[in-house]
Amino acid sequence: MRDIDDLIEKKTGLSIEEAMSIDDTNLYKKLGEETFWKLSTIFYTKVFNDEELWFRNIFKNRSLEDAIQNQVEFFIQRMGGPSYFSHRKGHPALIARHMDFNMKEKAAERWLYHMKEALSEVPAIDEDSKKRMMNYFTHTAYFLSIGVTGQQEARRNESGNL
Amino acid sequence: MRDIDDLIEKKTGLSIEEAMSIDDTNLYKKLGEETFWKLSTIFYTKVFNDEELWFRNIFKNRSLEDAIQNQVEFFIQRMGGPSYFSHRKGHPALIARHMDFNMKEKAAERWLYHMKEALSEVPAIDEDSKKRMMNYFTHTAYFLSIGVTGQQEARRNESGNL
Repeated sequence: MRDIDDLIEKKTGLSIEEAMSIDDTNLYKKLGEETFWKLSTIFYTKVFNDEELWFRNIFKNRSLEDAIQNQVEFFIQRMGGPSYFSHRKGHPALIARHMDFNMKEKAAERWLYHMKEALSEVPAIDEDSKKRMMNYFTHTAYFLSIGVTGQQEARRNESGNL
Repeated sequence: MRDIDDLIEKKTGLSIEEAMSIDDTNLYKKLGEETFWKLSTIFYTKVFNDEELWFRNIFKNRSLEDAIQNQVEFFIQRMGGPSYFSHRKGHPALIARHMDFNMKEKAAERWLYHMKEALSEVPAIDEDSKKRMMNYFTHTAYFLSIGVTGQQEARRNESGNL
């Protein structure tokens, strides 16, 4: 997966170290649980009401409540808090859990657009935390769009060999 | 992926809560960094010298040093320590990172056999920690064998539709 990381850096300008600078501080302790709930609630409310139908449709089989809970629990776990996500759902296994979504680069960009807006609407998130989180989200969005597309292409290539 | 969790519970007798009981205590703080290095060094030395050629061959394109470092860093990160793994390699994305390995159920069992032996050869790991870790490893090994095989089957099914 080294190739993916190089490709992400090329597309986003972010090294892995920059993307993972969320780990240099404990954002969960700094921001508190409620802040993560606010962020994800604002984010998914935007997503579920997106004027861009193609993007809104990616989430059409999900309930707003589930989408928010999954995201909040993953963020809290990943950013230094309790492992709520794993206790309820097991391994994050990010690429595998996104296989059913149509995660093209355009979707990654739209996801990031809404997340940037959402971050700016939560006053409790200071500029430094915001930057760390946007770097992490940017890396992750591209990681998923490349990773999921890569798996799907591998499927197609394998089928060609049958 | 709810189906996978149910299947793992059926095969292993472990609920997600039991599998993730590694999170109820900070095993990194309890056991210390050196213990994880010892465990993975013993484990992979066994694996790379396995008398079962089919299992040893799964790792034939890996160096012993890399295998140990990747495992140690992932374990430390997952069990309450610094995010060494993500800072060097990015998201764990467990299923995607195991796609190139031939992870059948038999391989999961062989992996667990060596890990159980390795755990018993590190005196610093107390019985309670050992149990939590084996539960986690058991869940994870089956999760990967089912998840990776599932992805591979999905590839085959997709190819049938072309």
